[in-house]
Amino acid sequence: MNTPVGSVGVVTPQKLVFEEALALDCGRSLPRFELMVETYGQLNAAASNAVLICHALSGDHHAAGLHSEDDSKPGWWDNCIGPGKPIDTDRFFVVALNNLGGCKGSTGPVSLNPDNGQPYGPDFPLLTVGDWVRSQARLADRLGIRQWAAVIGGSLGGMQVQQWAIEFPARIRHAVVIASAPELSAQNIAFNEIARQAILSDPDFHGGRYYEQGTVPSRGLKLARMLGHITYLSDEAMRAKFGAELKAATPAFNFDVEFEVESYLRHQGQSFVDRFDANTYLLMTKALDYFDPARDAGGSLVDAYRAAQAKFLVIAFASDWRFSPARSREIVRALVAAGRAVSYAEIDSQLGHDDFLMPIPQYHGVLRTYLARVAEEGP
Amino acid sequence: MNTPVGSVGVVTPQKLVFEEALALDCGRSLPRFELMVETYGQLNAAASNAVLICHALSGDHHAAGLHSEDDSKPGWWDNCIGPGKPIDTDRFFVVALNNLGGCKGSTGPVSLNPDNGQPYGPDFPLLTVGDWVRSQARLADRLGIRQWAAVIGGSLGGMQVQQWAIEFPARIRHAVVIASAPELSAQNIAFNEIARQAILSDPDFHGGRYYEQGTVPSRGLKLARMLGHITYLSDEAMRAKFGAELKAATPAFNFDVEFEVESYLRHQGQSFVDRFDANTYLLMTKALDYFDPARDAGGSLVDAYRAAQAKFLVIAFASDWRFSPARSREIVRALVAAGRAVSYAEIDSQLGHDDFLMPIPQYHGVLRTYLARVAEEGP
Repeated sequence: MNTPVGSVGVVTPQKLVFEEALALDCGRSLPRFELMVETYGQLNAAASNAVLICHALSGDHHAAGLHSEDDSKPGWWDNCIGPGKPIDTDRFFVVALNNLGGCKGSTGPVSLNPDNGQPYGPDFPLLTVGDWVRSQARLADRLGIRQWAAVIGGSLGGMQVQQWAIEFPARIRHAVVIASAPELSAQNIAFNEIARQAILSDPDFHGGRYYEQGTVPSRGLKLARMLGHITYLSDEAMRAKFGAELKAATPAFNFDVEFEVESYLRHQGQSFVDRFDANTYLLMTKALDYFDPARDAGGSLVDAYRAAQAKFLVIAFASDWRFSPARSREIVRALVAAGRAVSYAEIDSQLGHDDFLMPIPQYHGVLRTYLARVAEEGP
Repeated sequence: MNTPVGSVGVVTPQKLVFEEALALDCGRSLPRFELMVETYGQLNAAASNAVLICHALSGDHHAAGLHSEDDSKPGWWDNCIGPGKPIDTDRFFVVALNNLGGCKGSTGPVSLNPDNGQPYGPDFPLLTVGDWVRSQARLADRLGIRQWAAVIGGSLGGMQVQQWAIEFPARIRHAVVIASAPELSAQNIAFNEIARQAILSDPDFHGGRYYEQGTVPSRGLKLARMLGHITYLSDEAMRAKFGAELKAATPAFNFDVEFEVESYLRHQGQSFVDRFDANTYLLMTKALDYFDPARDAGGSLVDAYRAAQAKFLVIAFASDWRFSPARSREIVRALVAAGRAVSYAEIDSQLGHDDFLMPIPQYHGVLRTYLARVAEEGP
């Protein structure tokens, strides 16, 4: 097999079925659910080398490797997961999944509602980060993993990591929280709200029942994604990538593309419409808005973290304005006040929030060193 | 008359008609145009005490005073313009107008096209900051003002001030550029592009001919305005104003308003739809995107400013992330390199870009002191 050096090679996703009902924070429950999962590396005999990867807003179970030998696009975190890579599949058994409510094969709004045989659509319950973590605990049980060596995630993924440490303290040895926050800011919520209004007000949304109508709320989903991309890049990175110069010598005086950044955003928006579900997007933004471990602990983040036992590695990126280093330092300060062991790295970076997906040497160096120690120490 | 202390009192807007054709940067021309204007204070015999106020994206001619004795809402910059106020109408003759292309009475997309008696709509030409300044020069001629004591504007208004200094150096003694930029950044353009796409893709937009259709692209215009508001406030100000706390004790698990910032944005968006025209909004964002005096001077901002003769006062606000102090310092550095006289003040502030409309003592103190000297020095 001719796979790139350091690649996990060709991987086959599995759909795991969970027949026991899952109670949800909203008060409803799912009678059964399915999770799409990929694993890389080998679980050792003690089942002590398992690492869970939690994905961000638009991520999925395909974190590393290829889906066929002539697949041109590897998984979304392939630069970080593989033999000899920072998340080293020669040492760790790595588990990645599409979260519940997703649109890449796990049970979500696109799935058929067993009550009526129709797609759930807007009847699919809104979920919380806690709901995800509880479904991931079922996955751990299924795989025979009593305790994760580490749970790792960036952005919304980092919120799942925090929730794991708080809710299942005995089941996670290390919590790696990357480019994340202890809760959304009002500005973060504002961006989410505009994205949601774009989708909800699209006439093709039909109250979320667009599958039956044969439509797609493409205008709204496209706008939502364009808006997201503004928050993923720093102003400086946008300037470096696209400049602010007209493509032509003089203005066209119409609404065609006149600046590089316009064609970038339109392209990103359109390609997202072709691969993502609007109801899932709405659900993901709500899970972000709701995440607030301090609220669940009487208003104190310190008290929330007191429940945790894991050691923490917190990583932030200097150019990230979506979840800035200041937000990561809030996490670190509260962890220290709660008496938790925590390491913190602030990475020099240019791109913005998207840097957590990039193979920045300083960043991957920190991850590699930390995880090498995790692999050596054992449970 | 019982008006507030320091108020210019009840004012009556005038519609001035300009019958001579105006050639535009797009290559087309307007055969005639009208401008809605308000003036405050008295023009002196030498016509040397006139001050022009240039408005920002959604501003208009009603900058100060009331429209009737029981008017509950004064003009948009009433805290700064009036007897004894920083822009002192006891000393200055202050002129404010609704820019060409606007929707508050000046000729714009809502106006009737003399060619066919129908509203211009999308046939109204896209304008540049230069077009505005040239129409404002016609206004100065009409009012008998050969040279402005000062031209003053915030945000997009500050771009008009720069253009005045560059294009009509003999007609402006002082240029007061507030919370502005020498051109948009790629991120600024990205926000504008998403706002435009929201309007252009609204099925009720009908290619801009919604007047004839009896519709209003309210969904798109609402989204555009919500998006604007994100850029007008700092993250910290949003947090201070709205917090990031749920209004209820627990999530509602639906798409109703759950956070204060959501109701604020929905309200701002909806009230904007009731008072602003979508074609004008599109036009204003394009004028912003096109502003780039360096481009017009072979790529050098310094060379662009060499044409100016005015003295400059540049003011920026620490918490402004739409047009940050760094952008104002670009203006200042280029002015210094071009040999121009320039004063610069960076105001401690909390709110963000909207601070340029606020009566911050340090800010109004700088304006007051500077303009008092302008009034004393004479032409």
